[in-house]
Amino acid sequence: MSRASSRRVHIGRWTAGRYGDADDDVAAEEPLQLSLDGEPLSVVMRTPGNDIELTVGLLHAERVITSIDDVAAMRISAEADEQEEAFAVRADLIESNAVDVHLAKTAARRPRRSFLSSSACGVCGATTLSDLAHDHAPLAEGPVVDAALLPPLADRLRERQELFERTGGLHAAGLFTRDGTLVALREDIGRHNAVDKVVGRSVLDRTVPLRDSVLAVSGRGGYEIIQKAVAAAIPIVVAVGAPSSLAVATAQRFGLTLVGFLRGDRFNVYSAPQRIRSS
Amino acid sequence: MSRASSRRVHIGRWTAGRYGDADDDVAAEEPLQLSLDGEPLSVVMRTPGNDIELTVGLLHAERVITSIDDVAAMRISAEADEQEEAFAVRADLIESNAVDVHLAKTAARRPRRSFLSSSACGVCGATTLSDLAHDHAPLAEGPVVDAALLPPLADRLRERQELFERTGGLHAAGLFTRDGTLVALREDIGRHNAVDKVVGRSVLDRTVPLRDSVLAVSGRGGYEIIQKAVAAAIPIVVAVGAPSSLAVATAQRFGLTLVGFLRGDRFNVYSAPQRIRSS
Repeated sequence: MSRASSRRVHIGRWTAGRYGDADDDVAAEEPLQLSLDGEPLSVVMRTPGNDIELTVGLLHAERVITSIDDVAAMRISAEADEQEEAFAVRADLIESNAVDVHLAKTAARRPRRSFLSSSACGVCGATTLSDLAHDHAPLAEGPVVDAALLPPLADRLRERQELFERTGGLHAAGLFTRDGTLVALREDIGRHNAVDKVVGRSVLDRTVPLRDSVLAVSGRGGYEIIQKAVAAAIPIVVAVGAPSSLAVATAQRFGLTLVGFLRGDRFNVYSAPQRIRSS
Repeated sequence: MSRASSRRVHIGRWTAGRYGDADDDVAAEEPLQLSLDGEPLSVVMRTPGNDIELTVGLLHAERVITSIDDVAAMRISAEADEQEEAFAVRADLIESNAVDVHLAKTAARRPRRSFLSSSACGVCGATTLSDLAHDHAPLAEGPVVDAALLPPLADRLRERQELFERTGGLHAAGLFTRDGTLVALREDIGRHNAVDKVVGRSVLDRTVPLRDSVLAVSGRGGYEIIQKAVAAAIPIVVAVGAPSSLAVATAQRFGLTLVGFLRGDRFNVYSAPQRIRSS
């Protein structure tokens, strides 16, 4: 992740009754304007970096695209001038706050309404659980993972979080194989964005549906995380923090294994425990 | 806060290599359908409870209303039947997932577009900092608070967080006077919602603009928190977690005092330090 993902600021620091000056790094948060075929679609607040992954992941989560073949071209508009870029190469190094996606004719699905008004907005296009059920089938049976494999995932997320170390202000999402090998890790000020980036990377790599994968998130497991996992067919989601009631209900509905409060040698399983083997 | 704010679920619990069954409480997350004069406006994911405060606070943050006089009536639709309620009394006890707001003729401002598509969506109506500057003036000079007053605010937030204790999954926002007296505390799965509820309570109580107040939030300080504080004229915002770059930039632009990483006897001041007296 590039240096653009944080900003140096001058601060006052209060410590044990004394006040002094210091320099500090804060996590970058900037609006990204998304357009579809030249029409403004949405503004997403995100940490700059991996914007192509974020865009592709978000469009995939909202079922605008089902594979990268549904994308004819993507244009990144830099502040000063425009440039066209192949979206597979070094897109993470381009700095811009606008992405225009041109859909291929294969993309039958258009947004039902202006759904993408926020980075946290899993409900905007699919307002209810029944809408989500209309779009997605329950998850397939496998894989089964060893319970002892899960607790180390939290440590591995943290170890790899460069930006969190520096700014204390970022969430991480990590995609792991069923045996715990890290496939991709992304950080963002919004944990839903971090998930979109990880899934977007997989869409670009043509590895979606992710039927053999484990998704780990550094914070809480809310509805939108589960919705995005269902859209990518990820069968196991592991959250370091607490789940919400709607996350649990959604996971149960789709047969997704939802693990929460992954701390030390402990975790809770909120749904589909059959994928976790306690041998 | 009512029991409706959490849900009992049956879980599997893995502890030090052993697997067992347990009951657990998770934070409730449900969609709230907002309508304006009968027209669907938005779906907000939130923790049920204090929905009138949330609605009023959100409309205030987005400048649809500037005082409660701009609201002619509010209708809460229960699942089974509809009922009309005076919005000042026991609204926290009504359970419903739909609120329809009828604006008074005094409410000159209509949403410029469908801005409220998500609970985290401070940018949807005002997409840029310059839009925000168009709507709001820089904050007035006062008050000045004692630095030693700030660290205890984090403890007081936590002490009063009933739901967090039970579910581990909720954010809190607390409104304090300049001498540290708690005025209102609200919890929600989204910290922006918790802020909307606190400000909405103040709009109902006709105490907005909150020029003498300190707002404390349990998590990070992102852009949308600062945007909502600016809209309510709250001069000091204290976050237990990290701020974002855009939060810092916005606070600097409006002369809002932004404090972050409030932990133990330490904190950082990111903008307008003149309101903090280190005597």
